[in-house]
Amino acid sequence: MIKTDILIIGAGPTGLFTVFEAGLLKLKCHLIDALPQPGGQCAEIYPKKPIYDIPAFPEVLAGDLVDNLMKQIKPFQPGFTLGERAQTIDKQEDGSFIVTTNKGTKHHAPVVAIAGGLGSFEPRKPPISNIASYEDKGVEYIIRDPELYRDKNVVIAGGGDSALDWSIFLADVASEVTLVHRRNEFRGALDSVEKVQDLKNQGKIKLITPAEVVEVIGEGAVSGVSIKQGAEVFNKDCDHFIPLFGLAPKLGPIADWGLEIEKNAIKVDNTLDYQTNIPGIYAIGDVNTYPGKLKLILCGFHEATLMCQSAYQRIFPDKRYVMKYTTVGGVTGFDGTKKEAPKAVVKAIE
Amino acid sequence: MIKTDILIIGAGPTGLFTVFEAGLLKLKCHLIDALPQPGGQCAEIYPKKPIYDIPAFPEVLAGDLVDNLMKQIKPFQPGFTLGERAQTIDKQEDGSFIVTTNKGTKHHAPVVAIAGGLGSFEPRKPPISNIASYEDKGVEYIIRDPELYRDKNVVIAGGGDSALDWSIFLADVASEVTLVHRRNEFRGALDSVEKVQDLKNQGKIKLITPAEVVEVIGEGAVSGVSIKQGAEVFNKDCDHFIPLFGLAPKLGPIADWGLEIEKNAIKVDNTLDYQTNIPGIYAIGDVNTYPGKLKLILCGFHEATLMCQSAYQRIFPDKRYVMKYTTVGGVTGFDGTKKEAPKAVVKAIE
Repeated sequence: MIKTDILIIGAGPTGLFTVFEAGLLKLKCHLIDALPQPGGQCAEIYPKKPIYDIPAFPEVLAGDLVDNLMKQIKPFQPGFTLGERAQTIDKQEDGSFIVTTNKGTKHHAPVVAIAGGLGSFEPRKPPISNIASYEDKGVEYIIRDPELYRDKNVVIAGGGDSALDWSIFLADVASEVTLVHRRNEFRGALDSVEKVQDLKNQGKIKLITPAEVVEVIGEGAVSGVSIKQGAEVFNKDCDHFIPLFGLAPKLGPIADWGLEIEKNAIKVDNTLDYQTNIPGIYAIGDVNTYPGKLKLILCGFHEATLMCQSAYQRIFPDKRYVMKYTTVGGVTGFDGTKKEAPKAVVKAIE
Repeated sequence: MIKTDILIIGAGPTGLFTVFEAGLLKLKCHLIDALPQPGGQCAEIYPKKPIYDIPAFPEVLAGDLVDNLMKQIKPFQPGFTLGERAQTIDKQEDGSFIVTTNKGTKHHAPVVAIAGGLGSFEPRKPPISNIASYEDKGVEYIIRDPELYRDKNVVIAGGGDSALDWSIFLADVASEVTLVHRRNEFRGALDSVEKVQDLKNQGKIKLITPAEVVEVIGEGAVSGVSIKQGAEVFNKDCDHFIPLFGLAPKLGPIADWGLEIEKNAIKVDNTLDYQTNIPGIYAIGDVNTYPGKLKLILCGFHEATLMCQSAYQRIFPDKRYVMKYTTVGGVTGFDGTKKEAPKAVVKAIE
């Protein structure tokens, strides 16, 4: 059982910054995220895209924003449960919560902060009737470890950046890469499209377009796929079939936690501490909704900050927290680090 | 008469970021600030101090934060009325406002956003009975233009960073610099205290401690000061007397604008758009108060953002604004500049 003060569901920018604000209050945090790395969409979907509306950053790449936040929260030693989806929540008699993931990992905390963004990003699956039985047996919708494909025969399906980029990357790793797409046209960064063209010309990527994978073949594990091109249907041997049709956010199991839901988001009772209808559970960032809500990262930062104050009151009902400015009091990490402004001296001049 | 969409009172971080969020909505902004430069306290009081709680900045100097914000808002060409205090506000029949400064500059706008921080920073004046009649006639509480002191005989009073730093700076500009302080001990950056000690040893700064200026002398303009040291009182010739006893924030004339005031801050009606009891006047950042209010820069950013949406509705009651992410839609400046993420292409691979 993992124990912490604030259990944060979602390790996107809002969830990450919560660790910092909680840390200033000496509260420890643990984060759960379905994605294999922290950063949410910023890290998974558009790490190389510039964001222009983070205050005091005229321009910042989404991936760099995440790196900066990870650096900022490092002194507060957050724990992470990554690649697992928060599945169930059980309120304990003392008002605390136990949250269990789809892989059975249990977390216990007096406060739960849902910073789930648009939901957990689930891969869009192609409508292939028998595909489910091959999942994790040669069919993967997300590439977690490219080494899995070393010297393997791989078929990738898709026409966007993800399909292009992984085809390029795996061309040097796999023994054979075949890219199947419904159209001749690909949609992605110009650079990526041109690289795939080059690799195809060099014979390092096989292209089958316009075509569709219509069936997965294999006894127990993938041994090939069936491809439909025009009127013709033919089989193609492979060890892995990787459909990369993008990720779509789903509120997922959280929708069944008894929270008030509106427009696929969690309603918060007020905009003073962003608590939900269940005391002790807060919703911050893109996952929450209230009149005039803007799904902006900078709003999540504010919501996280106010939420931490309320969480402190819940955890320590008898203590009174006196806010100190970091410019004055500095930042003392749980790892023993201390950052503070150079102190003024009082010194005689003679 | 200066005309704009949103008249912002206070050019600190919150006021500056308002220009960006308003700009995304194609609204123009003009800022009024009593200080001679933008940035509020960050620029005037502690430009060299690190701040640790700006999201995604593990550490940023207050002065750099201001520079970054100025760079971020540049495409939206804000106007500035600096070195003037917003004095009076007059509601027009059409619901718009005219704000006049202490120097008589008039500004007309449908929306006023008060981002006044802790108030306008006013110099702490020493209790010298006849000092008021010499203001701007040789007595200055803030150094706006160091060139004014070129080859002049200057007496500075004070024992903090400001007195130390300006004594150092003016030692190379003025013909004579005398520093008067009530104690032998100075309170400031070690480096500054040591530099003053050096300059004193070299005879470039005269030090009179522990002592106090008790009277200003001169016919119409300053020609000297009277200094009390122990039991002795003596006169010292000078062209300028500069008491640098720090700045203290005062809500000032804004307190008389008919706004609900609580604990020296402006009460906002709600935390959805931070509007005050006077429709069309908003209060954002440290100047406002509501239950649980935290006087943090990051909260000001959020408040500014929500306020701009409400301002848009007030200015264009019939238009519906559809928010676009800067990552998707980019940022189009009023100066014709355009920043946007590299676009995806749709291209056949043959």
